[in-house]
Amino acid sequence: MAMMKAAVFVEPGRIEIEDKPIPDVGPNEALIRITTTTICGTDVHILKGEYPVAPGLTIGHEPVGVIEKLGRNVQGYQEGQRVIAGAICPSFSSYACQDGCSAQDGGSHSHGYKPMGGWRFGNTIDGAQAEYLLVPDAQANLSPVPENLSDEQVLMCPDIMSTGFAGAESANIRIGDIVAVFAQGPIGLCATAGARLRGASLIIAVDGVDERLTMAKQMGADITLDFRKDDVVAEIMKLTGGRGVDASIEALGLQQTFESALRVLKPGGTLSSLGVYSGNLTIPLDAFCAGLGDHKIITSLCPGGKERMRRLMDIIASGRLDLGAMVTHRFKLEQIKEAYELFSHQRDGVLKVAIET
Amino acid sequence: MAMMKAAVFVEPGRIEIEDKPIPDVGPNEALIRITTTTICGTDVHILKGEYPVAPGLTIGHEPVGVIEKLGRNVQGYQEGQRVIAGAICPSFSSYACQDGCSAQDGGSHSHGYKPMGGWRFGNTIDGAQAEYLLVPDAQANLSPVPENLSDEQVLMCPDIMSTGFAGAESANIRIGDIVAVFAQGPIGLCATAGARLRGASLIIAVDGVDERLTMAKQMGADITLDFRKDDVVAEIMKLTGGRGVDASIEALGLQQTFESALRVLKPGGTLSSLGVYSGNLTIPLDAFCAGLGDHKIITSLCPGGKERMRRLMDIIASGRLDLGAMVTHRFKLEQIKEAYELFSHQRDGVLKVAIET
Amino acid sequence: MAMMKAAVFVEPGRIEIEDKPIPDVGPNEALIRITTTTICGTDVHILKGEYPVAPGLTIGHEPVGVIEKLGRNVQGYQEGQRVIAGAICPSFSSYACQDGCSAQDGGSHSHGYKPMGGWRFGNTIDGAQAEYLLVPDAQANLSPVPENLSDEQVLMCPDIMSTGFAGAESANIRIGDIVAVFAQGPIGLCATAGARLRGASLIIAVDGVDERLTMAKQMGADITLDFRKDDVVAEIMKLTGGRGVDASIEALGLQQTFESALRVLKPGGTLSSLGVYSGNLTIPLDAFCAGLGDHKIITSLCPGGKERMRRLMDIIASGRLDLGAMVTHRFKLEQIKEAYELFSHQRDGVLKVAIET
Amino acid sequence: MAMMKAAVFVEPGRIEIEDKPIPDVGPNEALIRITTTTICGTDVHILKGEYPVAPGLTIGHEPVGVIEKLGRNVQGYQEGQRVIAGAICPSFSSYACQDGCSAQDGGSHSHGYKPMGGWRFGNTIDGAQAEYLLVPDAQANLSPVPENLSDEQVLMCPDIMSTGFAGAESANIRIGDIVAVFAQGPIGLCATAGARLRGASLIIAVDGVDERLTMAKQMGADITLDFRKDDVVAEIMKLTGGRGVDASIEALGLQQTFESALRVLKPGGTLSSLGVYSGNLTIPLDAFCAGLGDHKIITSLCPGGKERMRRLMDIIASGRLDLGAMVTHRFKLEQIKEAYELFSHQRDGVLKVAIET
Repeated sequence: MAMMKAAVFVEPGRIEIEDKPIPDVGPNEALIRITTTTICGTDVHILKGEYPVAPGLTIGHEPVGVIEKLGRNVQGYQEGQRVIAGAICPSFSSYACQDGCSAQDGGSHSHGYKPMGGWRFGNTIDGAQAEYLLVPDAQANLSPVPENLSDEQVLMCPDIMSTGFAGAESANIRIGDIVAVFAQGPIGLCATAGARLRGASLIIAVDGVDERLTMAKQMGADITLDFRKDDVVAEIMKLTGGRGVDASIEALGLQQTFESALRVLKPGGTLSSLGVYSGNLTIPLDAFCAGLGDHKIITSLCPGGKERMRRLMDIIASGRLDLGAMVTHRFKLEQIKEAYELFSHQRDGVLKVAIET
Repeated sequence: MAMMKAAVFVEPGRIEIEDKPIPDVGPNEALIRITTTTICGTDVHILKGEYPVAPGLTIGHEPVGVIEKLGRNVQGYQEGQRVIAGAICPSFSSYACQDGCSAQDGGSHSHGYKPMGGWRFGNTIDGAQAEYLLVPDAQANLSPVPENLSDEQVLMCPDIMSTGFAGAESANIRIGDIVAVFAQGPIGLCATAGARLRGASLIIAVDGVDERLTMAKQMGADITLDFRKDDVVAEIMKLTGGRGVDASIEALGLQQTFESALRVLKPGGTLSSLGVYSGNLTIPLDAFCAGLGDHKIITSLCPGGKERMRRLMDIIASGRLDLGAMVTHRFKLEQIKEAYELFSHQRDGVLKVAIET
Repeated sequence: MAMMKAAVFVEPGRIEIEDKPIPDVGPNEALIRITTTTICGTDVHILKGEYPVAPGLTIGHEPVGVIEKLGRNVQGYQEGQRVIAGAICPSFSSYACQDGCSAQDGGSHSHGYKPMGGWRFGNTIDGAQAEYLLVPDAQANLSPVPENLSDEQVLMCPDIMSTGFAGAESANIRIGDIVAVFAQGPIGLCATAGARLRGASLIIAVDGVDERLTMAKQMGADITLDFRKDDVVAEIMKLTGGRGVDASIEALGLQQTFESALRVLKPGGTLSSLGVYSGNLTIPLDAFCAGLGDHKIITSLCPGGKERMRRLMDIIASGRLDLGAMVTHRFKLEQIKEAYELFSHQRDGVLKVAIET
Repeated sequence: MAMMKAAVFVEPGRIEIEDKPIPDVGPNEALIRITTTTICGTDVHILKGEYPVAPGLTIGHEPVGVIEKLGRNVQGYQEGQRVIAGAICPSFSSYACQDGCSAQDGGSHSHGYKPMGGWRFGNTIDGAQAEYLLVPDAQANLSPVPENLSDEQVLMCPDIMSTGFAGAESANIRIGDIVAVFAQGPIGLCATAGARLRGASLIIAVDGVDERLTMAKQMGADITLDFRKDDVVAEIMKLTGGRGVDASIEALGLQQTFESALRVLKPGGTLSSLGVYSGNLTIPLDAFCAGLGDHKIITSLCPGGKERMRRLMDIIASGRLDLGAMVTHRFKLEQIKEAYELFSHQRDGVLKVAIET
């Protein structure tokens, strides 16, 4: 039995490189040899035991690689082809998927909708921080990488870019909208870039880390606010002449950012929420206009599927945006514990790491 | 100076019939002789001092009447014509109105958006519980009543029906959706009727008052749940096979109804909120899937304007719905204190009262 | 090799009952024993050679039946279970499907979109006018029939009801809209019912056959116009006070109905086109306001998939609508040539025939 | 009586500078002293007698100027303030406006919708090619120019930019869409810019004039095709791998561009039509998939109103786009006949002229 290296969740606080058998390939599946992957904030929650997964599971949900073997029913691809697959890897055959909620795919045979049911890699099945990855429902999820793009250029597509852009899309940003984006980590930066791509005329990006505020400008922010120095809510209301923003995007997952995003929202505006919260949220009565402000609060989970991946890679291929700039550090798969160490402590101005195999 | 009777807010706890001058009519205004009006839950909040208005203000925002005098610039109407005007009476010339938020009209000359800026009758200007009502921006707000409809048949259009239907519309109910409506007061009943009109295949109405549950069936509910007896959340999850509802409508304004509406929502579903809340709201982490459930929470204020009123009256004229059934009690304007007494204590199975002048 | 009876296209003008082998079942497929099916207008085009299919193909795309055998990968169903499948039977794994165009599924492995690519039964693979039907991508397409519904009650779901409702949905009918539906054959009748379900306040149905005008009223039309007697365009403009309709639905496929549907449309309105045209169409300059009327012309192909079927059956199960009334004649599979004879000549007031096996 | 110079339609073939009284200002109006205006293709149609207007009417619908006098009811502006107003200058108080069709405003007192009813300047009332312009419904239509923008930078906002962007907006372009724009005159160029602003990943611009193809690249086109050399339809199908485009925008008004725009459209795609057609259009059966292609054909008239103008000017103020580059020639009002001469014959590579007063 051929073996491979994989980063496995052992117990809270411990992810280790272990040997695992290279999986067999069923008729609707494909085996990918991973060339580059990355670590996500969610993986850090898994490492810390804050988000529970089964011990022994391979972690990671952002695969860039090469098709090693195709299942019998998977057509239109060749072995050796470079591909990515979305972090959310839905069946596309369920009721939920057909109802427009592929990220909430409750599994292919259930009538139900399961929250995050569409997220499988490194959650309910083995993930991408390994030498090989088995992709289920491969016909729906393998997306070929355009030739002129490097691994690092498309590394953000499976999760960060898809999620951040969804924040701008769910906010239904129109030409000439004013948008505030709260937090400029990788997802917030992509939300900023997405708001720019959708035609916002003024994008205000908020963070408290210098490098991130600088990067925010590069991603399309017109104005940056530093919450260490600025009264962010007051400043945004001033910048908008008291009107408030058309859309605010929350990209962190804290009460404070959520609340500020609501406070700067014009009546009739949309709060697009991307953060993963760790506690109950409070909606202040006044910021919510007692329920009479024609507000929308919309949460978005990362959209997946090969069509989504194709669109995102096309944006990069056309030169609209270069997210390769977000990769600040590089590691080999064997060094992944160092990478977790660096990334989880946000050291050295890290934005995203690339893990090469 | 000609005088009229008007129900005036004097101080918390006191609304009195007083004599006021019949107002002069400016070029863009119209004077309406009120024939029928009603009392809204919001008026009770005003009476109790919970929602502050200026002492001396005439209360009421649901006018049915006859045009007494038209301003010089108001065209296409005749004096003597029967009309209604929406509770929300926007200018339709502001930035907010042109941006699709007429209910949040910040006033005609401001760049800003003011929460509830579009609500003027009995809030920022004299209201409809009087013999005469001055309608601002009359060209945009007067809507002729079809001949075959009685005052009581159209009495719900200005507020209750427009608001309740907005609950169903904001939820973007599609043919075959499953919908739960929490609370079956007048607005919840209209939300139930609206969900039925939009093509829901299963409507579950929740309340704790027998008459309201009965009326809910009449308005289109398929199933009613009584929160005094049923574990509502558990029951709805059972009725939907564990899937949850496509849309839930909150029509009361309490943490409990808001929270239940969220708990029964499928991932990807919409919570359409109509209630006027009186305190901060809590979003429970689990019900919110930590922000990863592709949920939408949308609040709607009553849409106004003559086109909205026309559409609502057409629904009634075509026999799709008879909201006259909601009028359970009738009073003369002079008896309005009795009417407030009855309505504010929800006595005698009162749903809505008609005030005739 | 087990054999079955099937209605096969032999050559233009000839459909015959032939013996064919009962097909083998692949891992993603299911074999259905057909209990009831029907004949569609498109089948008549096939019979006449106007729509080309391969000689030897089994015709028919409206299956009601019982699961005889499930492929290995198809989960959540039981053999013996009653099911339907949509006329359009997409893979749901292609780029087109993930892009919101499942009816235009270009096949699971192609990047392309093929017009009508999602329509397979009786078009590119063997169809439903047979004792057995092989359903591809069964996980995405089998939809269980609620117990209390008869075969005939759900017989319209796979095509007629899904198409007709799509006409109302694509028109984005809002509460209080005025809608005109041109032609009241089976699809037009379903469009009328769909417009009613979406909240139109006035539905004007046009045809020239008495039985159909009568049935139109039963399906929800408020007013019927008989093109043999009425100047339809003039009459509709009169009924709308010169305003025109918010939406017009074309349900026949002729220049005349298309043109009338455009002529009665208000500026800003939507022409929702369902007909299968047999020649070039002309858009008259005046009716099109020279391109300046903010008009929308939208064509819809029948949506498919199990979620769509579930929704449609739920509408029937909830008693919103009974389409069983459309079945005017019944035949055994062996008598299908008689059924074609009757249906293709529209004799005896036929609306739809049921073919029982 | 104070007099002014105005460019007046005298008879087909003749527009002359004449003396007219400076108009009085009613309570809802404003008088603008024009500083810069321009000539539109529609004005050339008027000059030629192809689009009929009343003899004696002042032409022009693209005003940039300074408030000379405000009507009594117009609030929030100051005399001396720089403003623009949209070419389409709706009342915003009519049924049509409240129904979302402000460009089709049927007039403030009519129930009806009149095609182009919202277009008044130089059509039904005196226009902008004059020293002074009277703006009706000024509260809804005056939009202040940001200080740092020149007249020429905002000169395209009232018509060209609003129309071209509407082409991209009506097509509902999504991030990653492929878009083809047919014709790169001023409106087509703005449609190209609009498609870029909405997030298209590939924009293919088609024209037959070198300067326009060059300008198309400047406005955001990725690829330009020259219909004099290229088989445009074949080339676009090749560029999209046989898939067709997500959206095509027609910006000329000819059968050929309309038809090509349809032929390159993927099933499920949208043809967004901006051209003013001068004859009936033919929809070829094959390009229309016989009505089964899930196609949308959407026409858009230039959106107006002060909020629209504000958004467009904000796009320019934020540096997203500089449309000043489109002004190729400048004239004084007295020289306007020369300007018409040049512009109507498309001489000297003219794109747009500026008329200064």
